Amino acid sequence: MAPVPSVDPDLASPKPSLDALFDLLGPDLVRVNRLIIERMHSPVALIPQLAGHIVSAGGKRLRPLLTLGAARLCGYRGERHIALAAAVEFIHTATLLHDDVVDASELRRGRDTANAVWGNKPAVLVGDFLFARSFELMVEDGSLRVLEILSRAAAVIAEGEVAQLITANDTATTEAAYLAVIEAKTAALFAAAARIGAVIATRPEAEEAALERFGRNLGIAYQLIDDMLDFSAEVEELGKSVGDDFRDGKITLPVLIAFARGDADERAFWRRTLEAGKQEAGDLDRAIRLVERRGALAETLARARRYAGDAAAALASFPDGKLRRALAEATVFTTERSF
Amino acid sequence: MAPVPSVDPDLASPKPSLDALFDLLGPDLVRVNRLIIERMHSPVALIPQLAGHIVSAGGKRLRPLLTLGAARLCGYRGERHIALAAAVEFIHTATLLHDDVVDASELRRGRDTANAVWGNKPAVLVGDFLFARSFELMVEDGSLRVLEILSRAAAVIAEGEVAQLITANDTATTEAAYLAVIEAKTAALFAAAARIGAVIATRPEAEEAALERFGRNLGIAYQLIDDMLDFSAEVEELGKSVGDDFRDGKITLPVLIAFARGDADERAFWRRTLEAGKQEAGDLDRAIRLVERRGALAETLARARRYAGDAAAALASFPDGKLRRALAEATVFTTERSF
Repeated sequence: MAPVPSVDPDLASPKPSLDALFDLLGPDLVRVNRLIIERMHSPVALIPQLAGHIVSAGGKRLRPLLTLGAARLCGYRGERHIALAAAVEFIHTATLLHDDVVDASELRRGRDTANAVWGNKPAVLVGDFLFARSFELMVEDGSLRVLEILSRAAAVIAEGEVAQLITANDTATTEAAYLAVIEAKTAALFAAAARIGAVIATRPEAEEAALERFGRNLGIAYQLIDDMLDFSAEVEELGKSVGDDFRDGKITLPVLIAFARGDADERAFWRRTLEAGKQEAGDLDRAIRLVERRGALAETLARARRYAGDAAAALASFPDGKLRRALAEATVFTTERSF
Repeated sequence: MAPVPSVDPDLASPKPSLDALFDLLGPDLVRVNRLIIERMHSPVALIPQLAGHIVSAGGKRLRPLLTLGAARLCGYRGERHIALAAAVEFIHTATLLHDDVVDASELRRGRDTANAVWGNKPAVLVGDFLFARSFELMVEDGSLRVLEILSRAAAVIAEGEVAQLITANDTATTEAAYLAVIEAKTAALFAAAARIGAVIATRPEAEEAALERFGRNLGIAYQLIDDMLDFSAEVEELGKSVGDDFRDGKITLPVLIAFARGDADERAFWRRTLEAGKQEAGDLDRAIRLVERRGALAETLARARRYAGDAAAALASFPDGKLRRALAEATVFTTERSF
């Protein structure tokens, strides 16, 4: 077994980034982006307008990068990873559109959300369109195994989103329940995106499983950091309003830790703001102070780093080289990012 | 070519119904219903609760019946039609859930809608779940051709729903645009549901195309009657509130005809109520009187009967027998129904 790749952020690169990954996969990603534009076309003009708004909003394209990177890491030399990476991004985009409706969000990555611009109705329906289009892309690819992996992931994502609604406003949510939610709503698609790279390269099950593990752990780390940033970063850096989760009454790890470590007065604060949903001016500032003071952000970051480490470790059986190092750096980037 | 099946409602049966179809396909439909219940299960209990609310609301199961009937008409003797009929119904149910959110409907088939009971959020997400589950069922079936037909239909449905939003509130909508909308939002799934029956029976393309034509024309007829009933039937009969489309500003054929035939005063009425969206007490009653007086309901019914006739005619190449007669009767039922 090859040694576990490790990237010490203090030594390897002062500021871990996705640059190496973009460099290696850039030409593929350009083709994915072109296909995305092409395949979100519809004679109903509002569909590409609305879909284009969110697709062009400048996401990191992390999930399609996983498919591209996993395929290349498995030595894949064909063309199929392009369309499947686009299919993965369509599922993600459909989920974002529906999420923003569900959360009644008005900003995403610093721009108005689709539902804020066009209303909820087309946002729901264009999400449905992209979801269907994603399956059309997979069907054209023709792998039932890929279809199986991604249709399962899509069902699990929806289950995770519903489970999240149920745990919302409930400070008695366990960490296990929280983890189950983020594993389903976020990590399942990361895992599937990476796994299908091995599938199209017709690699053995062990490699599929390793890439699945890579994606899953990376996805959990990614979501933990997302939940942390909601209590810490500036709107300008994050490109989304800080405090969204707090206002929605979402129960995330920073809250669970701060609640568990808080005194009676602090618990009463969390119960009022998140369970009773009674929030007033200054509450978000206080929430941010509390998660900070109780070490909840540091603890969330530490956990995220552990998952990111497990993600990097899952790459151990693949040949060392630029791509593996770039993927390992992506796991570090995930936990050090501020957006 | 066998003679075109024809069922004269005045001769064959005083009151056309789906009874013959239910008699012939009842055992299959029982298995479909059982599978639907089984496969809407999820560890997230709210999902089967919410999905069960709409699934058990007593729809006519027309779309799965088309799959079952088409398969049997093609001499199919296997088991695959059961799961695929369930997949079709899941797509339909997902669409209903999202429609009710989009239309902010509070009643469907005389019961509270899922969004009225649980709110919009879980209704959107459970729709997504059912959609994903539908693809899981198709993947288990393993036919890429079926996946192609139904993923295409799902994309077209979403396009039709978005197009409907665009034509809403616009009395200058053409009949062609209206027809394109209902063909996409309703008839595409009818067509696909019937076509896949021929696919699994491995019948030649001509039979696939004939069943597609049967489903498409039946779907158009069905939607025309739906749009007519919104201006005519009683809530109790229809199981849904009369006037929903009017209140939503939807531009349906009865409105287009009444508008085209109306005088200046009537056109001003339609513009105020549907374009400007300014409705007051008594407006729905006046709308119902106007579509009636201008013969718009009779004309819509006549058109629906023509499509239903085309649907029945599409069955001509299949062997005569109980099943073909029951399917032909279903086309008549579609236009004579009051619910």
